[in-house]
Amino acid sequence: MGREARVPKKARSLFSRIGKKRAVMKRDVGAELDVEITAPTTLEFQIAVAPQPGAEVTESLAFVLNGKEIPLADVREISGDHGNRIHTFDVKEGNLKVSYSATVVGQSEPAPLRDIDLSTYLRPSRYAEADKFFGFAATEFGDLADSSTLLEKVSSWVGTRLSYVPGSSDPIDGAADTLLAGAGVCRGYAHLVIALLRAVNVPARLVSVYAPGCHPMDFHAVGEAFVDGQWRVVDATCLAPRQSLLRIATGRDAADTACLDNHKGSINLNNMTVTATVDGDLPRDSLEELVSIR
Amino acid sequence: MGREARVPKKARSLFSRIGKKRAVMKRDVGAELDVEITAPTTLEFQIAVAPQPGAEVTESLAFVLNGKEIPLADVREISGDHGNRIHTFDVKEGNLKVSYSATVVGQSEPAPLRDIDLSTYLRPSRYAEADKFFGFAATEFGDLADSSTLLEKVSSWVGTRLSYVPGSSDPIDGAADTLLAGAGVCRGYAHLVIALLRAVNVPARLVSVYAPGCHPMDFHAVGEAFVDGQWRVVDATCLAPRQSLLRIATGRDAADTACLDNHKGSINLNNMTVTATVDGDLPRDSLEELVSIR
Amino acid sequence: MGREARVPKKARSLFSRIGKKRAVMKRDVGAELDVEITAPTTLEFQIAVAPQPGAEVTESLAFVLNGKEIPLADVREISGDHGNRIHTFDVKEGNLKVSYSATVVGQSEPAPLRDIDLSTYLRPSRYAEADKFFGFAATEFGDLADSSTLLEKVSSWVGTRLSYVPGSSDPIDGAADTLLAGAGVCRGYAHLVIALLRAVNVPARLVSVYAPGCHPMDFHAVGEAFVDGQWRVVDATCLAPRQSLLRIATGRDAADTACLDNHKGSINLNNMTVTATVDGDLPRDSLEELVSIR
Amino acid sequence: MGREARVPKKARSLFSRIGKKRAVMKRDVGAELDVEITAPTTLEFQIAVAPQPGAEVTESLAFVLNGKEIPLADVREISGDHGNRIHTFDVKEGNLKVSYSATVVGQSEPAPLRDIDLSTYLRPSRYAEADKFFGFAATEFGDLADSSTLLEKVSSWVGTRLSYVPGSSDPIDGAADTLLAGAGVCRGYAHLVIALLRAVNVPARLVSVYAPGCHPMDFHAVGEAFVDGQWRVVDATCLAPRQSLLRIATGRDAADTACLDNHKGSINLNNMTVTATVDGDLPRDSLEELVSIR
Repeated sequence: MGREARVPKKARSLFSRIGKKRAVMKRDVGAELDVEITAPTTLEFQIAVAPQPGAEVTESLAFVLNGKEIPLADVREISGDHGNRIHTFDVKEGNLKVSYSATVVGQSEPAPLRDIDLSTYLRPSRYAEADKFFGFAATEFGDLADSSTLLEKVSSWVGTRLSYVPGSSDPIDGAADTLLAGAGVCRGYAHLVIALLRAVNVPARLVSVYAPGCHPMDFHAVGEAFVDGQWRVVDATCLAPRQSLLRIATGRDAADTACLDNHKGSINLNNMTVTATVDGDLPRDSLEELVSIR
Repeated sequence: MGREARVPKKARSLFSRIGKKRAVMKRDVGAELDVEITAPTTLEFQIAVAPQPGAEVTESLAFVLNGKEIPLADVREISGDHGNRIHTFDVKEGNLKVSYSATVVGQSEPAPLRDIDLSTYLRPSRYAEADKFFGFAATEFGDLADSSTLLEKVSSWVGTRLSYVPGSSDPIDGAADTLLAGAGVCRGYAHLVIALLRAVNVPARLVSVYAPGCHPMDFHAVGEAFVDGQWRVVDATCLAPRQSLLRIATGRDAADTACLDNHKGSINLNNMTVTATVDGDLPRDSLEELVSIR
Repeated sequence: MGREARVPKKARSLFSRIGKKRAVMKRDVGAELDVEITAPTTLEFQIAVAPQPGAEVTESLAFVLNGKEIPLADVREISGDHGNRIHTFDVKEGNLKVSYSATVVGQSEPAPLRDIDLSTYLRPSRYAEADKFFGFAATEFGDLADSSTLLEKVSSWVGTRLSYVPGSSDPIDGAADTLLAGAGVCRGYAHLVIALLRAVNVPARLVSVYAPGCHPMDFHAVGEAFVDGQWRVVDATCLAPRQSLLRIATGRDAADTACLDNHKGSINLNNMTVTATVDGDLPRDSLEELVSIR
Repeated sequence: MGREARVPKKARSLFSRIGKKRAVMKRDVGAELDVEITAPTTLEFQIAVAPQPGAEVTESLAFVLNGKEIPLADVREISGDHGNRIHTFDVKEGNLKVSYSATVVGQSEPAPLRDIDLSTYLRPSRYAEADKFFGFAATEFGDLADSSTLLEKVSSWVGTRLSYVPGSSDPIDGAADTLLAGAGVCRGYAHLVIALLRAVNVPARLVSVYAPGCHPMDFHAVGEAFVDGQWRVVDATCLAPRQSLLRIATGRDAADTACLDNHKGSINLNNMTVTATVDGDLPRDSLEELVSIR
């Protein structure tokens, strides 16, 4: 029996109602990467979905170097905060093919609440440098009282101020650069949202997700803000319904959620293909609604 | 009897008219600086008013090192663009007292128009880094058609977004820093105005001025923008009437107009007192009016 | 009689040895803060020493608002990563006096080793923006093979390149600003060390500490780098012996270790006094030695 | 027969000598640009060589819009500081082809000396933000006494610290970004040289040039510093002999010397081809020599 069946009929923010009674959500996601390693290095991948307590996950992951699968014994899975899963190993020169796929049936419980997170996610971070934004954010949003109004205003403000322009930002650009440039991709939108929210005292963080319906399809990044006692997703790009996002990694900003980190050596990412679908129609989304990643 | 009483009531933009009979403006300005020189250096002062063609200027300038006046033969006056006057000399350790005073009767002709200025003052500069603002300025002001509307909008936008907070900015802060901090002094206001105007294709530059009525009294800095075929002053701080500003130095930003530059050595500015008065009542100013520095 | 006199002469790196009989170190530390609260706010303090497993800690902590002690029931202690302890509460306007003191007998076990830390502390952070330094660090230090050599070189490079100048940096300055300015305080030294180490693939983080022998006495900040399988302290300021440092908070940079954070309201820190002493002579320190915080 | 063969063998620094009989240098330079104009705009070109007093210049310049030559009456030549020549006109949508060629026989007199330049070119500018470098430059070069030694040291320091990497920098990057990235193109090399020289009190500016022998052939940018009473060229890229550089535009940094500036509209530069040759062998260059652009 699905979770929704247990809740009163008038529950407004029903997570992804399609029609009325709905089936259990089923999501299929995956990623294929083709990486050229030109100097030996240590790689870290964050492409596997976070633990989904309450849902059922089936997944597969394979790393093939120069045509030969790397034994799983040589791949370490490091578990970080929020259930982040890092797959890491050393590699020599050559061509690396990465295949990940997962099927998630049902939705997970909402993100757990921890006191320390409310402190950590008010702090300025590398790409969401909230301490630079205190003056600007206070002028623009400072007289809005409650955090759910702030969430909606900041989200629509960022959404209308920025243009979505692939290739418009550098990897080392932060939220201040994005504000001035007036353009970015999902990462830039999310960093600006997060920096502004923190600057007006709303804890906010970044989540990398699989995003059914996202176009162009790619790894997606959204904000997650602490509003009304819950972590709520905020996506100023409006590129995908928030109800079917599937959490990969959670952290302060893109420094914590990179799908691929390379230490020491030298690599080229030849190709990357991401897939994410939901069984049945995509959920309908509307900006006024408060939604949690599940 | 006040100055305003002497002119016909409907003559609102009195000081931008030429060729009409009107009361002659008389301004007295001056500056006293007390500088500790702790290592031998070359100093540059830009405290003398620019040439005022059409007006009558009487002035005096003295540099006293350790109680002894530096002979004028040892002080070079370098003439820069726009009539900027730099007084420069080498000094040893000791205490330097600087006294400048000028009386200006009448008003000068408006700033001359040169083609090259319209090009130069669209360029980004050290503290008015317009190239960082293209996206932001286009979103905020981009659909305003004419430059006189832009002048008024940018001026009031900056004036309402920033708080005037003495000590709120570093000497190396530029317009982007000021925008984010939401606070600054006259220099920061002017740099932000200039950067935004240039970013929407209005040539704009910085002018250091003596500003009768300014409170707190100090060297003042304002923007000057090319609007409707003239250089018009824009002062988002609204600290002093624009009609009685007296031009000192003109340039791209504060890098060109510093009242005191120190090369090589080491100095402390112990004290600085600026005076600026206009004979009779202060002119009345209103934001809608286009005013030139004269 | 001094502590050094009691131990065999050849035991140079005394404090990093475990399992040998040695004099027990006794440290007394404390802090008094006087804070003016001008608008109601939530405060967070990180002034209490971290848990010291293996040592004996006696401590006291009191918050007095307008002459009346805040009941401990109203003060929450939030426990963060690495045993960081945040004391937080809401306050109205008024004068807040904070008193903390602790006596630590013996030394704690070295910082525990966790896989995730080796990943987290390679990432760029707000004030140790390692991603900006890849090119610079590779040129300056890139051909040094092992991490203990890197630790020594980076530490002495930063120590000789920077001048210790109180008041030389802004709260929003990061390691790049400090490198260019050529000056900073302990926070700036530590951020630059950390950014450079991360940029050459040595995991590094910031630790706020009580520092017996530090002059001027204040909360001190040092780097901690993962070298030869241990977290080793690196203090390019050389202001205090590393052997008697006492850990308060550990994190990515000063954003994680601030002794006082203010959310929402408005405060002034009227006064702050820090004390830190070690019973007997101060340990002797030398740059070649690898030392852990204990 | 090559040029070198015609002169006595021991005349090494041939082109910096004045008053000796020598072969007349003949340079042929040119540029072809293909620009797509997607929204009406005002364009500014700085591709014509600066006036060459003492040499003989033959040149041609044509702008062809959608297959039809723009009458020269519609193209204004604005004359800026240092003889900079800006060709400007309004254009509608379409395809613009630009052809410039010049033949210069003989060498011009060295750049004239003006007091104001020695002041202007010590100031920080948009991309050569010398005020950020005071601390760093003083530590790295501060104890070098004379400006010719500084010129050589700064030039070779920058040349060995940076990697020449096409595409490595953004148009809005300044010297500080280049220092940290450790990479750039000619513009970045020149900006870093200029910022460092100004920071140690050597006046320095940027010159865009045609550079016979440069590989890859393109518009080139070099520094020009005031050393031993003359403006001397400094090119840390060492991509072309300094003796045969041909001056186009001179200014504070790339903001003053852009080959193409676009105001208001929207353009794409489809293609650009630059040619620059010297009749006979290329001059030989060596870092120790002081060379002026002529």
